[in-house]
Amino acid sequence: MSSLVVPVRVATVEAAVHSEREDLLVVEEPLEIRLGFGALEDRKEIRLSVTMRTPGHDEELVRGFLFTEGIVQDQRRILRIVQCQHVKAEELGNVMRAELDPTMEVDPAQWQRNFYTTSSCGVCGKSSIDAVHVQCQQRIIPFGPIDSALITGLPERMRDGQTVFRHTGGIHAAALFSRKGELLLLREDVGRHNAVDKVIGAALGTNLALADTLLLVSGRAGFELVQKCVVAGIPLMAAVGAPSSLAVQLAKGSGLTLIGFLRGERFNRYAP
Amino acid sequence: MSSLVVPVRVATVEAAVHSEREDLLVVEEPLEIRLGFGALEDRKEIRLSVTMRTPGHDEELVRGFLFTEGIVQDQRRILRIVQCQHVKAEELGNVMRAELDPTMEVDPAQWQRNFYTTSSCGVCGKSSIDAVHVQCQQRIIPFGPIDSALITGLPERMRDGQTVFRHTGGIHAAALFSRKGELLLLREDVGRHNAVDKVIGAALGTNLALADTLLLVSGRAGFELVQKCVVAGIPLMAAVGAPSSLAVQLAKGSGLTLIGFLRGERFNRYAP
Repeated sequence: MSSLVVPVRVATVEAAVHSEREDLLVVEEPLEIRLGFGALEDRKEIRLSVTMRTPGHDEELVRGFLFTEGIVQDQRRILRIVQCQHVKAEELGNVMRAELDPTMEVDPAQWQRNFYTTSSCGVCGKSSIDAVHVQCQQRIIPFGPIDSALITGLPERMRDGQTVFRHTGGIHAAALFSRKGELLLLREDVGRHNAVDKVIGAALGTNLALADTLLLVSGRAGFELVQKCVVAGIPLMAAVGAPSSLAVQLAKGSGLTLIGFLRGERFNRYAP
Repeated sequence: MSSLVVPVRVATVEAAVHSEREDLLVVEEPLEIRLGFGALEDRKEIRLSVTMRTPGHDEELVRGFLFTEGIVQDQRRILRIVQCQHVKAEELGNVMRAELDPTMEVDPAQWQRNFYTTSSCGVCGKSSIDAVHVQCQQRIIPFGPIDSALITGLPERMRDGQTVFRHTGGIHAAALFSRKGELLLLREDVGRHNAVDKVIGAALGTNLALADTLLLVSGRAGFELVQKCVVAGIPLMAAVGAPSSLAVQLAKGSGLTLIGFLRGERFNRYAP
């Protein structure tokens, strides 16, 4: 855990009484993602994005990001994902390169503005949703009836695995469960999107069928997190926090079961 | 408030008992920000970014974003900020254009990758911090000794103004206070960054001196929010949630007073 948290000297004030103590902070560092087409030809490198993330599981983060943003849907197109070595010493570990099948057709212009799928076909809720559906290889297979005891049991199982949160209180989590509620994979990251990309990227590296999983996130269910879930073909997403209007619209139009405000014995089902 | 929330039919489960009721969701819609150089010459338009935001106060959002991301520091360089009218009907209201002084030198290439200041000069914590300092027109004037009762009183005053949160539980807030703890401006948005940009953008449209204010945010204090605060010259930032390692480093290197875990009678001071 040495790279996930750092110690800090902190002044605590409680009921106007000051004291000093050691505390732990979650680590945040930039990560640059590059695409390479042909390992030896560096000129064909695209600098895709920089995200602020908690170091660790970076290969999974890159894999999940490329998948959930609709950049690489077929995992066989990713030849390998490596740390770039030809960088300044202080950048080492913060630059990852995904080597893609050189025959792949890519349109870098499409990615330069940003990764919101909205930008390609209009700037409104409807076109945001349409763009996600274009990215999806297959429709979600509806989850079907939900067992409320199974759902209300998920947060505690996630919390048990949130090692960094327990030490810092300052990190998001995303967890994949089986349809029976067994915790399969859990990732923590200072960025909500990164936690989701890491856990999905981790699943892509295994034989796990995402269509047989549920995703739980520690925060809110905004459009972009629901988008990642839909593109990944996960049939149920639950959030500890609230969903947004566009997230609910996307879920309804995608066959995703969307649960929010999952706390204690209580939750809301927004879709279907 | 009609554009900030929408009604939704929701199935609530509590202790395994199902019921249906009406609820309210916070609205999330994409906003595209464009830059224009000379009002009549559309060819000189740069499509800068798309952000998912809660509609409303969009002019402030654009103004704050351009300022806190170091794109336009001198407000006199912004001739006007308008809704683009030459868009599809369904996009109307979701595309804003900032008309900049046509003599301004801009480097669009610098913005195409993303808005993390990290990307221009290296991908590591140190260069992220250096990049913020390059953007700052002046150093922060240190806040000085803090009155703990004043600080612990801020969240309640912010909560009183969080109208949308009270109805939806699903929206972030950012508030500016005077040095005496009086609430000056409050903005809510589905995106944390947008709430901060809106409240700073609102302040830029008034005579308010940001150097005489405190900023409170409803969530965590990550690097990018602290960056916005530092670039704006606000001397104290308080967060209800945890800060990250890089946020604390940036605060320490900038003279910013950074407070986290501000809850009830308790808070932590991470910097100075």
